[in-house]
Amino acid sequence: MSKGQIFVLSGPPGAGKSTVRQALLEKRPSLIYSVSFTTRQPRAGERDGVDYYFVTREEFLARHKQGEFAEYNQIFGNYYGTSRKTLQEALDQGKEVLLDIDVDGAAILKMKFPGGVFILLVPPSRQELERRLRGRGTEDEAQVEERLARVAYELGSVGGYDYLICNDRLDEAVDGVLTIIKAESYRTKLSADDLLQQFAF
Amino acid sequence: MSKGQIFVLSGPPGAGKSTVRQALLEKRPSLIYSVSFTTRQPRAGERDGVDYYFVTREEFLARHKQGEFAEYNQIFGNYYGTSRKTLQEALDQGKEVLLDIDVDGAAILKMKFPGGVFILLVPPSRQELERRLRGRGTEDEAQVEERLARVAYELGSVGGYDYLICNDRLDEAVDGVLTIIKAESYRTKLSADDLLQQFAF
Repeated sequence: MSKGQIFVLSGPPGAGKSTVRQALLEKRPSLIYSVSFTTRQPRAGERDGVDYYFVTREEFLARHKQGEFAEYNQIFGNYYGTSRKTLQEALDQGKEVLLDIDVDGAAILKMKFPGGVFILLVPPSRQELERRLRGRGTEDEAQVEERLARVAYELGSVGGYDYLICNDRLDEAVDGVLTIIKAESYRTKLSADDLLQQFAF
Repeated sequence: MSKGQIFVLSGPPGAGKSTVRQALLEKRPSLIYSVSFTTRQPRAGERDGVDYYFVTREEFLARHKQGEFAEYNQIFGNYYGTSRKTLQEALDQGKEVLLDIDVDGAAILKMKFPGGVFILLVPPSRQELERRLRGRGTEDEAQVEERLARVAYELGSVGGYDYLICNDRLDEAVDGVLTIIKAESYRTKLSADDLLQQFAF
């Protein structure tokens, strides 16, 4: 049994996952971010090895063939994958590990790490989601429509998530995730024998 | 399905349950304390209807016969019981309800309310527990020994608890329980249909 703890953050594009993630890593420096591999193009400001490992389709599939991914899937024509080795190493070291994975990738990961904590981040409304997606300007109109069309599908997975956080105000959403991570650190992990020994009873 | 949430706080005598409970109720006024019935004598400063409903053995057993208790049991010669009606009403109103129940009472309650959150409060060491028990001066030496002899039995139930909090520093223990209660408020309760409707997707 690994000593660490997985926290998976999912949500529709535009829910604010990247912004929340950056704030979380600043506020809880002990939290390790599992950087995903992707074949999509970097957006302005995104750094290789920090936001994603940006790789070619060929490299991605070669890594998959070598069994490197704990989960991977394809969304909007791009591959995304989580490194099994990086994840397992962090868990073995007893770290809290944060992952940003879409709902289908999260489903795959949950089968392999059922003890993970799964958090779904949602926008306050469809209107606000549209506003954010158009506002960030990283997708053309067809791509925005494609993302909006997938939202109902994504939210359909809510029942598999442990926690649901509405990202209306960023600071409250970040505080919510931090609260969940901190609460999880109190989760009972000791056996009765361990406890009796530890407290010298 | 009730809308509220049960939080059960258990722990050996001297772990600091009463002090933690009082701090919790001050810091989170929305939290409702489920006042237990007991046949034990009030300690100095304890108020009827606030800390416990202090009743005679005859009254306790009469109430039990009328099915009034969601759980009850006998410890150190005294009866303790949780009012089913008070608990259910608070839950129906969507309240967060705090209960202070010993490990066996908690076990009974967990069978009836498996969705409850169960928190075990433990002292930092056996020595510190002894010091606190003798320091509070509410039990004679024989009673202190009786309580100490039961601690290993009580800690043996740790596996049934969701969270384990060591009450070394009071403010940290209180903050831990508050964090757990707050995190629980983000627990996914909406169905996919509810969510889609709420966010107008």
